[in-house]
Amino acid sequence: MIALYLEDFAPGQLFRSGEHRLDGEQIKAFARQFDPQPFHLDEDAARDTFFHGLVASGWHTAAITMSLLVESARVAGGLIGAGAEIAWPRPARSGDILHLEGEVLAVKPSRSKPDRGMVTIRCETKNQHGEVVQTMTCPLLVWRKPVGDS
Amino acid sequence: MIALYLEDFAPGQLFRSGEHRLDGEQIKAFARQFDPQPFHLDEDAARDTFFHGLVASGWHTAAITMSLLVESARVAGGLIGAGAEIAWPRPARSGDILHLEGEVLAVKPSRSKPDRGMVTIRCETKNQHGEVVQTMTCPLLVWRKPVGDS
Repeated sequence: MIALYLEDFAPGQLFRSGEHRLDGEQIKAFARQFDPQPFHLDEDAARDTFFHGLVASGWHTAAITMSLLVESARVAGGLIGAGAEIAWPRPARSGDILHLEGEVLAVKPSRSKPDRGMVTIRCETKNQHGEVVQTMTCPLLVWRKPVGDS
Repeated sequence: MIALYLEDFAPGQLFRSGEHRLDGEQIKAFARQFDPQPFHLDEDAARDTFFHGLVASGWHTAAITMSLLVESARVAGGLIGAGAEIAWPRPARSGDILHLEGEVLAVKPSRSKPDRGMVTIRCETKNQHGEVVQTMTCPLLVWRKPVGDS
């Protein structure tokens, strides 16, 4: 597996992840720990809510997105993010098969620190129908290739 | 427990959550599932990384923040967010005791849908030293009080 440095990125590059199959047990397990609300915890209780059925917590969708990103973007030194802008246009549901489609938006070498830069990516997390369940834009800290490496 | 409606919110309102004690086992369990990178998975491997030690995934910090928010903001019909802007100025670490300090930034009744509105909140997640490990701004869907209720 080749690790990527700042020099390997350019605006317009596209990437695509593998898939994650979401089920009700995953949705409820995440919700019990982090987002215990009726529409994430129980099919019956979820039916009478805004979502008309069990849906994944947006933070669960974000965490699954991260797992897909870690698999598909092998940045040297790891994926180190300082923040993110997220939107959930629709919820992820039990049975969804999620994947990630990403694009490099910008690559900026640091002015003050010659060993690093920022790569801004935009990711869409989509279900098996191509519907977007999450958009995310985030700047990542990426190292320059060590001097002497070819 | 009284549930809150749009009429109950006003810009400038402050709230504070209970506490969550973070430990290495929680950090590693979350990472194994969602963010399997050396600085989240293993104390020894983490020592030689950017973070100089084991740190929680930012998405783990976000998920803990959500659990603190669910406990402290009892919105009628649940906390329904369409997205969020997040920043992680420093990572959360094993032993941290996290809590949330929130402020209502804006309250906007919907123009087209008379039964609802948006409440924008800004939350800071802090450790036991008062250091901010996450800032988050997010608009929440909040229902108006049903007609006839006092």
